[in-house]
Amino acid sequence: MSTQSFNDRFLRACRRQPVDRTPVWFMRQAGRSQPEYRQLRERYSLLEICQLPELCAEVTLLPVRQLGVDAAILFADIMLPLGPMGVHFRLQGGLGPVVEAPIRRSPDIERLRPLEPEEDLPFVLEAIRLLRGELKVPLIGFAGAPFTLASYLIEGGPSRTFTQTKAFMYQEPALWHRLLEKLAAAIVQFLKAQAQAGAQALQVFDSWVGCLGPADYRAYVLPHMRRLFSELQDVDIPIIHFGVGTGGLLELMQEAGGDVLGIDWRVRLDQVWQRLDYRTALQGNLDPATLLGPWELVERQALKILAQAGGRPGHIFNLGHGVFPQTSPEHLQRLVELVHERSPEFISGFSSQEEAAP
Amino acid sequence: MSTQSFNDRFLRACRRQPVDRTPVWFMRQAGRSQPEYRQLRERYSLLEICQLPELCAEVTLLPVRQLGVDAAILFADIMLPLGPMGVHFRLQGGLGPVVEAPIRRSPDIERLRPLEPEEDLPFVLEAIRLLRGELKVPLIGFAGAPFTLASYLIEGGPSRTFTQTKAFMYQEPALWHRLLEKLAAAIVQFLKAQAQAGAQALQVFDSWVGCLGPADYRAYVLPHMRRLFSELQDVDIPIIHFGVGTGGLLELMQEAGGDVLGIDWRVRLDQVWQRLDYRTALQGNLDPATLLGPWELVERQALKILAQAGGRPGHIFNLGHGVFPQTSPEHLQRLVELVHERSPEFISGFSSQEEAAP
Repeated sequence: MSTQSFNDRFLRACRRQPVDRTPVWFMRQAGRSQPEYRQLRERYSLLEICQLPELCAEVTLLPVRQLGVDAAILFADIMLPLGPMGVHFRLQGGLGPVVEAPIRRSPDIERLRPLEPEEDLPFVLEAIRLLRGELKVPLIGFAGAPFTLASYLIEGGPSRTFTQTKAFMYQEPALWHRLLEKLAAAIVQFLKAQAQAGAQALQVFDSWVGCLGPADYRAYVLPHMRRLFSELQDVDIPIIHFGVGTGGLLELMQEAGGDVLGIDWRVRLDQVWQRLDYRTALQGNLDPATLLGPWELVERQALKILAQAGGRPGHIFNLGHGVFPQTSPEHLQRLVELVHERSPEFISGFSSQEEAAP
Repeated sequence: MSTQSFNDRFLRACRRQPVDRTPVWFMRQAGRSQPEYRQLRERYSLLEICQLPELCAEVTLLPVRQLGVDAAILFADIMLPLGPMGVHFRLQGGLGPVVEAPIRRSPDIERLRPLEPEEDLPFVLEAIRLLRGELKVPLIGFAGAPFTLASYLIEGGPSRTFTQTKAFMYQEPALWHRLLEKLAAAIVQFLKAQAQAGAQALQVFDSWVGCLGPADYRAYVLPHMRRLFSELQDVDIPIIHFGVGTGGLLELMQEAGGDVLGIDWRVRLDQVWQRLDYRTALQGNLDPATLLGPWELVERQALKILAQAGGRPGHIFNLGHGVFPQTSPEHLQRLVELVHERSPEFISGFSSQEEAAP
């Protein structure tokens, strides 16, 4: 048995409390970049792994053991809660979710059933309970945000332009808001259940909301996100609010809620933090493609991010989006070591600056 | 014969000179949103239209006559110069360019032939000459930027993540720079030839460069763009520098060059202009998806953009990306009218402010 004590670096950083080293984890740290996972996938589908709590826990634990990351994220898919709500979909390898009957009209929305996580997704909650017995780092639960889930439901699959989603939003604003309300209600239930089962932090993936301009975000998304975060307020664990390509939306996303904002590589972390008045923790923001380059490049870019974070409490090192399948696990492992080894110099630099301040 | 005099509003705005009304044109104003174009496409492929100067001129003129826009843009495709350079590709409807043998190694790059526009693309230059005899508005020529063309050559087609492009860039920086040099040299020749044939402005489409973070833009793209713009300096016509999702790159793109920056709807025009110290004209930035909504929405969003531009000399109204095929021509026509009718109030507001200033 390991006698290692619980590593709470990640949770402290979410709350913008001082840490000894910058915590680091990776979106999709459990997945196709790991040979063990690829082997499992020869026998089980992604959804089967999610539905078998022991297997799900095993997959979730793999990167924690191998990479030394400071947080585990439950192995799951943002489409999971949509199944019991009545949506038929499949996860198509290399493409993503494909929805059989995309949402077009009012009855398609009315038909969506409310989510009852304990009844509908017991395996997710069971996996969380199993993991809490094993883990020495915090466990992150998660869900897709209403906009991002709606985009899959309306497009019927992944999109580059989100044309149908936007057309629906503009042409049928009442239906749009009804859809987002129903999705937000389900997500709140799902995240609350994950917290109750033992998740120690939550991440809300609004991965595709960056396709919107700020005025549209304010009109069509912000009210739902604000309500979602406000209904989660009694869940007393940190929440990460994540999206890709959100450079123009960050103030509004901060207004919507979340203890941590997840940002991508298209923005400079130092500039973003200043814009946000340092009132929110930041997670990010290495381009996952960097890990396909030589180690020297990874090192240079990672140190640049640590320098931009400047050792200020409230930075969680992560990628700006998920690990690519072709990423070498060795690079990921070295990157964790690098962040752990090199961050203390930035942290002590920041502390001494603070002390020197009048 | 029309006795209407030449409308130089667009050219004046490119040079940040005062105008009576805000000029407006649309990327992909000639294309699938027009029934006449769709009819032509039943008989001719896109590349065939490009190769038949009379037909190309006709397609270019259609939206000018029907919509009343203040500029024409030559009907063409950014892949055109790659054919004579030795790249085999096809334009697949609904998807985009598909390159038969994507670039992988040094010989793939060395094999690329220099472009001789007069020999290789005489039909483009002939179409420009024909159009200059017909048009009462300026004619815009264009080319893809080195990064965006390289992304098609390396990915073999459109991409959402540009993983292969970035992996190549990181793993083979010397080859990457060699490729971008060759592409930039060809683009310079092509744009110079278009100007010589009579194009009165040029647009450089770096449509996909927004997938890069600022440090990568600086290292892998900026030197080539800077050289491209500097080699075009003796071409004494305005150049528009365009990309999508470039919110984090705009200062660097301004540094690279261009009289006008084309921006998309993910950023606020007023904030961008301030960031850029008003030293560059701006083109944009309505979300093309807005045009799929009701007219009231289009009107509201368009007026918001005019208000953000604030009547300042140097704004060209456009979309943040190309017109979607399913866009109604009526909406486009009304939008042109709206911009022409309503912009004078913002323009006179700005002028009186200027006069009132000490």
